[in-house]
Amino acid sequence: MSQLAKLQKWLQDTNTDVAYISDPINVNYFSGYGSDPEERVLALFVFKDADPFLFAPQLNVEEAKASGFEYDVYGYLDHENPFAIIAEKIKARTKNFENWAIEKDNLSVIRYQAIKTFFPTVGMTQDASRFIEQTRLYKSDAEIEIMNQAGADADFAFQQAFAAVKTGVSERDIMGQIEYALKKHGVMEMSFSTIVQAGANAANPHGGPSLDLVEPNELVLFDLGTVKDGYMSDATRTIAYGTPSEKAQDIFKVCLEANVTAMDKAKPGMTAAELDKIARDIITKAGYGEFFIHRLGHGIGKSTHEFPSIMEGNNMELQPGMCFSVEPGIYIPGVAGVRIEDCGHMTKDGFVPFTHTPKELLTIPLS
Amino acid sequence: MSQLAKLQKWLQDTNTDVAYISDPINVNYFSGYGSDPEERVLALFVFKDADPFLFAPQLNVEEAKASGFEYDVYGYLDHENPFAIIAEKIKARTKNFENWAIEKDNLSVIRYQAIKTFFPTVGMTQDASRFIEQTRLYKSDAEIEIMNQAGADADFAFQQAFAAVKTGVSERDIMGQIEYALKKHGVMEMSFSTIVQAGANAANPHGGPSLDLVEPNELVLFDLGTVKDGYMSDATRTIAYGTPSEKAQDIFKVCLEANVTAMDKAKPGMTAAELDKIARDIITKAGYGEFFIHRLGHGIGKSTHEFPSIMEGNNMELQPGMCFSVEPGIYIPGVAGVRIEDCGHMTKDGFVPFTHTPKELLTIPLS
Repeated sequence: MSQLAKLQKWLQDTNTDVAYISDPINVNYFSGYGSDPEERVLALFVFKDADPFLFAPQLNVEEAKASGFEYDVYGYLDHENPFAIIAEKIKARTKNFENWAIEKDNLSVIRYQAIKTFFPTVGMTQDASRFIEQTRLYKSDAEIEIMNQAGADADFAFQQAFAAVKTGVSERDIMGQIEYALKKHGVMEMSFSTIVQAGANAANPHGGPSLDLVEPNELVLFDLGTVKDGYMSDATRTIAYGTPSEKAQDIFKVCLEANVTAMDKAKPGMTAAELDKIARDIITKAGYGEFFIHRLGHGIGKSTHEFPSIMEGNNMELQPGMCFSVEPGIYIPGVAGVRIEDCGHMTKDGFVPFTHTPKELLTIPLS
Repeated sequence: MSQLAKLQKWLQDTNTDVAYISDPINVNYFSGYGSDPEERVLALFVFKDADPFLFAPQLNVEEAKASGFEYDVYGYLDHENPFAIIAEKIKARTKNFENWAIEKDNLSVIRYQAIKTFFPTVGMTQDASRFIEQTRLYKSDAEIEIMNQAGADADFAFQQAFAAVKTGVSERDIMGQIEYALKKHGVMEMSFSTIVQAGANAANPHGGPSLDLVEPNELVLFDLGTVKDGYMSDATRTIAYGTPSEKAQDIFKVCLEANVTAMDKAKPGMTAAELDKIARDIITKAGYGEFFIHRLGHGIGKSTHEFPSIMEGNNMELQPGMCFSVEPGIYIPGVAGVRIEDCGHMTKDGFVPFTHTPKELLTIPLS
């Protein structure tokens, strides 16, 4: 069943007349047409008993029509009131529009009030966000194939990253080299700004690449992701440039064990919290529990962060088709930081990663 | 007066007890602390009669405290309800919280409902979005100085772009070279994905760089922008690689005249629509009116697109301190596309651009 058909079925099951899809990512998920409208209005309207339509800035209407979306596409000009046109199109399409679902996570108060003006007596209490996050949680084989391709691009990026490491090159220069190599390789977009952190800088898991230079005998951390047909990759590797301190090597060893063990033991039916605990227990037992300061992982798909969240307190059962990261990290301020991350998908037999770059400590000789 | 003081004064003037600032860009604008919280909650609460506070994911609290924000910073952990903590902090801070302003353009319905749960009898009818967009419309000397620096980075980028043009290099390769050179130069972030379009590809003003190769004797269009301390640059140049067709040269000449004339004639007190018309009339008179398919310009600042919109129908008067683009374009499908764009600020004497790369047709010899 297509994503759109699932949404239509949900409208029928819940006796909801209209769904107003406002998040551009979800418009893309259900319609196949993707665009960032910035401050303009892009929306997909789906009905219980009528054909859906796309609504877009006039500038994008031809592109939307050419995108393969099978139904009507309507547009508006900058000086027009988009909600007046939407209301007119809805009222022309069906007599049943008394009961709406809106994306409460996405729709702004001003747009909610604007559409309400044209439908003052209509109930807009149904939350499409909850249905959509549940639907997006389970990836189809086709989605998983695209995410495998995105993973292969991330693996390609790691090879570029490792080749760029030498004495005196800045973190930011390496970041630039990685992203340039990807563009030449045909990868247009990163799923987030590439992270390159050497030595103690990697102890700040939210820091970006700096102008600091790579120095001999330290760890270097790379966290990167690419976009393929609207789906994200996200992976982290930590390598050695020369011979890092024993402490650094020890936290690497513990972090690797946590990553590999969690990936091996992840099985359908296990809860997200249980999986988090497998990795966390290894790190805690080694004495580094206080330095693993984030959740084990996050869901991934059309967003870099989505359901399921792999963390303490989340009793959601992991099931085949769910895609998420396994990314233990140990960050010791002033010393070093290590994170090792793969995203993958759950199958009936266990967790299968999208990235395959080896994880054992790679040592780049000094140069 | 600081941005924060302006907001506090507005609360007093409108007798509003609390402002809930939810857009991360505006949190940064008023507090100085910038971060992308993704799915987590970042907020600034400002009061009529008490000190403001920042509220952030616990992961960001130390960073926020170190950012120079002078008041309290509170955090929450992933498993806590952020709105319960916010409510507790507000009630501990002041007895006056009966009357709120929210950012209607930004606040989602789900978060509006979540905060409402803790303040069921409170009126949240004031729209802080309208006040903020008016405030952000007028840039201070300090903001204009940063935007001049961002413009200088864009000028640097054009030099890299022009040097990368040769036969057989792809649009995407040039894009990668530009962004890599910027990273080495210390520019971490683009304000949008760099556009490089050669020949007829430039006739699609919304298209990105492709794997198509630059060919001799065509125009090449570059539209790019950089970020400096949270402020954007945005500029477009079109150059010749060899000798383009006479038609291509003619649309370049008309577009340049439209750009230069509009920038020269822009004066305070003129409306946005009048400025748009100056450029549009030149293009229309030359016979290309139907190929100038977008507004003349957009405001710029902490966002790439903000007020004022330089378009037909907008009777807002342009005043000193306003920053916007002047970017006429002519797009002839299958033939060529030209756009020439500078952003700048209005002064009492006229429009002063942030970018200074020459605009006369630069010809790169074939190589």
